[in-house]
Amino acid sequence: MGEIRLEIEELIKDLKFDEKGLIPVIVQDYKTGRVLMHAYMNEEALMKTIETGEAWYYSRSRKTLWHKGETSGNYQKVIDIAVDCDKDTLLLIVEQIGVACHTGNFSCFYRSLKGGVSFLFYLENLLKERKKMLPDGSYSAKLFKEGKEKILQKLGEESVETIIAGMKGNKDEFLYEGADLTFHFLISLVEEDAELREIIEELIKRHK
Amino acid sequence: MGEIRLEIEELIKDLKFDEKGLIPVIVQDYKTGRVLMHAYMNEEALMKTIETGEAWYYSRSRKTLWHKGETSGNYQKVIDIAVDCDKDTLLLIVEQIGVACHTGNFSCFYRSLKGGVSFLFYLENLLKERKKMLPDGSYSAKLFKEGKEKILQKLGEESVETIIAGMKGNKDEFLYEGADLTFHFLISLVEEDAELREIIEELIKRHK
Repeated sequence: MGEIRLEIEELIKDLKFDEKGLIPVIVQDYKTGRVLMHAYMNEEALMKTIETGEAWYYSRSRKTLWHKGETSGNYQKVIDIAVDCDKDTLLLIVEQIGVACHTGNFSCFYRSLKGGVSFLFYLENLLKERKKMLPDGSYSAKLFKEGKEKILQKLGEESVETIIAGMKGNKDEFLYEGADLTFHFLISLVEEDAELREIIEELIKRHK
Repeated sequence: MGEIRLEIEELIKDLKFDEKGLIPVIVQDYKTGRVLMHAYMNEEALMKTIETGEAWYYSRSRKTLWHKGETSGNYQKVIDIAVDCDKDTLLLIVEQIGVACHTGNFSCFYRSLKGGVSFLFYLENLLKERKKMLPDGSYSAKLFKEGKEKILQKLGEESVETIIAGMKGNKDEFLYEGADLTFHFLISLVEEDAELREIIEELIKRHK
């Protein structure tokens, strides 16, 4: 089945608020896909969020409406709103100004077994660690030891191999070489002290 | 502040289950970062999840423990578990077998205003649409009209420009050219009927 685009009226129609008049909201960062926080809205918070384009929640402990960022400056600009199959949970996709968590961490989910992020960002973090620790037997550590010239030479080789696989029209080979290209692009990002997040920010800037 | 890695014992210590003995769980796809569903666990479901490495939840409607995928085959293999700052919500990062939603959609959040995904996947979906509709005035549509050879030629040019910027050590220029490279790599993926998800799957295969 395909994804469905809704108008705001359809999205909020028949939303199921619980017995306290609240609906759980999952908040996700637009740039990195990182899950930022879990909060609740009542109907008023949802209306304010839609009206202002910034996230408003209902604080269960303070029993009051809460404009996220009002005191900290860490506002959340709403990029997209999704609703789940049961219409009893919302997903807010936001551009996070500053950080989401009151502890100063970007995400409230800053404690995890393995890093708490999806694969590309996990791989990027692993490569940063490899560059720092330079462990024996690691392919990326070997490249970091050899330095920038060698890393960028490899980036060139992998892009040429991707282009050749593309011209041949062999999808499996294209995916294999494209994965090589992606991997070496991440290595070159780490080598240049740049981040995937910054590449995405540059793409978003152009897209606006 | 940095991210913190916890052992499983520290992660589950002092977890705050609500008055019904439940804790909300956000479930996220490891490959795409897509938020899949919102569920609840009681202590037993959490223990089963940790023991088996597959997601178990507590069904509030059926008032029973529920091994996700038991009837559908759509199991969720647990890659990572994160806990939020208040220790009252869990984030489960999973490898989703098949689809997450009982409607047949990959994610339960299949209805949204704009696609319900983070930026790179949004951009990929937009480029697929451009290839299909070929709207006037669109740069990517122009490239799709010119065809594979031109697209792969551009991929080569952008990789060379990224390499030159990297050798110069100018980070702003490197990010600018790296964004160009990323954009044209996505275009070449769409042209070859390949997907970013498949590139990530290939990288995960090698990482195992």
